[in-house]
Amino acid sequence: MARRLDVPDLVERARRGEQLAVGRLLSLVESDTPAGREALREVAAALAPHTGHAHVVGLTGPPGVGKSTTTSALVGALRAQGRRVGVLAVDPSSPFSGGALLGDRVRMGEHATDDGVFIRSMATRGHLGGLSWSTPQALRVLDAAGCDVVLIETVGVGQSEVEVVALADTTVVLLAPGMGDGVQAAKAGILEVADVFVVNKADRDGAPQTVRDLRHMISLGGTSDDGAWKRPVVSTVASRQEGLDDLVAALDTHRDWLDASGERERRRLARAAGEIEAITLDELRTRIGDVRGGSGLPDLARRVVAGEIDPYRAAEVLAGGVGSATG
Amino acid sequence: MARRLDVPDLVERARRGEQLAVGRLLSLVESDTPAGREALREVAAALAPHTGHAHVVGLTGPPGVGKSTTTSALVGALRAQGRRVGVLAVDPSSPFSGGALLGDRVRMGEHATDDGVFIRSMATRGHLGGLSWSTPQALRVLDAAGCDVVLIETVGVGQSEVEVVALADTTVVLLAPGMGDGVQAAKAGILEVADVFVVNKADRDGAPQTVRDLRHMISLGGTSDDGAWKRPVVSTVASRQEGLDDLVAALDTHRDWLDASGERERRRLARAAGEIEAITLDELRTRIGDVRGGSGLPDLARRVVAGEIDPYRAAEVLAGGVGSATG
Repeated sequence: MARRLDVPDLVERARRGEQLAVGRLLSLVESDTPAGREALREVAAALAPHTGHAHVVGLTGPPGVGKSTTTSALVGALRAQGRRVGVLAVDPSSPFSGGALLGDRVRMGEHATDDGVFIRSMATRGHLGGLSWSTPQALRVLDAAGCDVVLIETVGVGQSEVEVVALADTTVVLLAPGMGDGVQAAKAGILEVADVFVVNKADRDGAPQTVRDLRHMISLGGTSDDGAWKRPVVSTVASRQEGLDDLVAALDTHRDWLDASGERERRRLARAAGEIEAITLDELRTRIGDVRGGSGLPDLARRVVAGEIDPYRAAEVLAGGVGSATG
Repeated sequence: MARRLDVPDLVERARRGEQLAVGRLLSLVESDTPAGREALREVAAALAPHTGHAHVVGLTGPPGVGKSTTTSALVGALRAQGRRVGVLAVDPSSPFSGGALLGDRVRMGEHATDDGVFIRSMATRGHLGGLSWSTPQALRVLDAAGCDVVLIETVGVGQSEVEVVALADTTVVLLAPGMGDGVQAAKAGILEVADVFVVNKADRDGAPQTVRDLRHMISLGGTSDDGAWKRPVVSTVASRQEGLDDLVAALDTHRDWLDASGERERRRLARAAGEIEAITLDELRTRIGDVRGGSGLPDLARRVVAGEIDPYRAAEVLAGGVGSATG
């Protein structure tokens, strides 16, 4: 890591679509060392002017619906149209540990030698299956690399649906027939976040019923206002590459609606605001840690325990120290 | 709320043990309005010199072990020795909505007319059954009111065990026989936090086995170092007031050990540091909200979306604004 990084050169090469440069930048933004954090800032600054082109599509759904297979098939359909595609696959396990999804990753292998596809398995951190803090920057790398579409595939447990919605322009929720009561089996939350529904494994018994249930649920949502988005239900058999063109068409229609309605801009502003806020709080927390490392916090704690000051006054003093460190 | 508060007078009357003044202060620290937050600071400042006396005992355990009954019986045992006792009962439901624990609260009714007992049901906020942010200040109110012991009873789900440990000098974990595999039924986490174990409903089948299992588990923990705390297991039948003197003795022994070992000071310092840190972050988050309310964050978000700056630089600008607001 002592090697001097030429970040602007890396970004320039990534913009030309060089796989190695893209991979290197993705590694940089994923690194969690202090040096890595420094590099992350440099990369973020260098990427900023070159982003905002990609259509970011999040794919989520309960385990077993075929998210990885669908993602891979969708890559194939997009490539057949000559589009450049990025994939961020958020694994529940580290990419080093292998893990249950390795087989699915291997299935992506057919795209591994395609220069127009950039695939990255991201490690999750913190939350159960949640997106890594570096995912927004990884997105920007793929965006700057000229990807027309970036797919984020999550494991669909807990936290991650909410997070993928926060990152994506278009959220695709996958379901499959025969999972308990189909639609019922999915938590209400996951249905609400969908912009596009996919019923995968549509060749199975119960698929028409699942589609009907979904359409009924959507109709209950009340979409009568002009200009509102009517959420489509697309049937696919991803393992046989069936229905993928319909899915691509649905994604494009949603992207056009986002642009026309101003919703894309609104979502991107909200996303940027959330990201800035998260980075700011993280930064302030780090500064508190620094103050803590000095004599600040322990001394304040001692004075609170001794009854010399109350914790609110102590927090004011601490925040003052954090503030003055801003300089 | 327009009425002028005389906080020092309230604190003075609370210190003399006036129930009304104590209740009023508890309401003040629980209030979540902006005016209430201001009052909270004033109360905290006025209380600071008068705290640090009470032995804070947290009681937690899985649902159904008889936490409320044990708490009530423990109050009785402590009162029989002439000690002043405070109780903070953290209900999963609002005190206004009634809820499942109402019957238990009514059982506390025998102490309701006792001038030496201060009982408060706290509403939970945020986390499932988690302690309210105002619990530390409510503790200080009861401490300043001259309580020798303050009991915090939690519902024992999720988050709250961790939080009660952060607040208590002594953590009591209650178990009961016949809950599945007894000890096995309890999550490992809840066992680790215990300073004192109680096997309640000790007249039931399986109680001796539960006690043996616990003792075995404790012995596996390896407590051979001199000066380490050997966690006792106390058997009670709280509904018949049996074993409560043993529990009081165990609590006193632990308090003496905490004082002699320096552990009490260490825990209080860590607790104060955590509280200061939490208040500071909350304060900084509020300031970000203020900046957000102004043109700061939306404008930064717009510039990030436009690719003019990266989110890390935007966070620096935002944190600068937060810092300068410190003044």
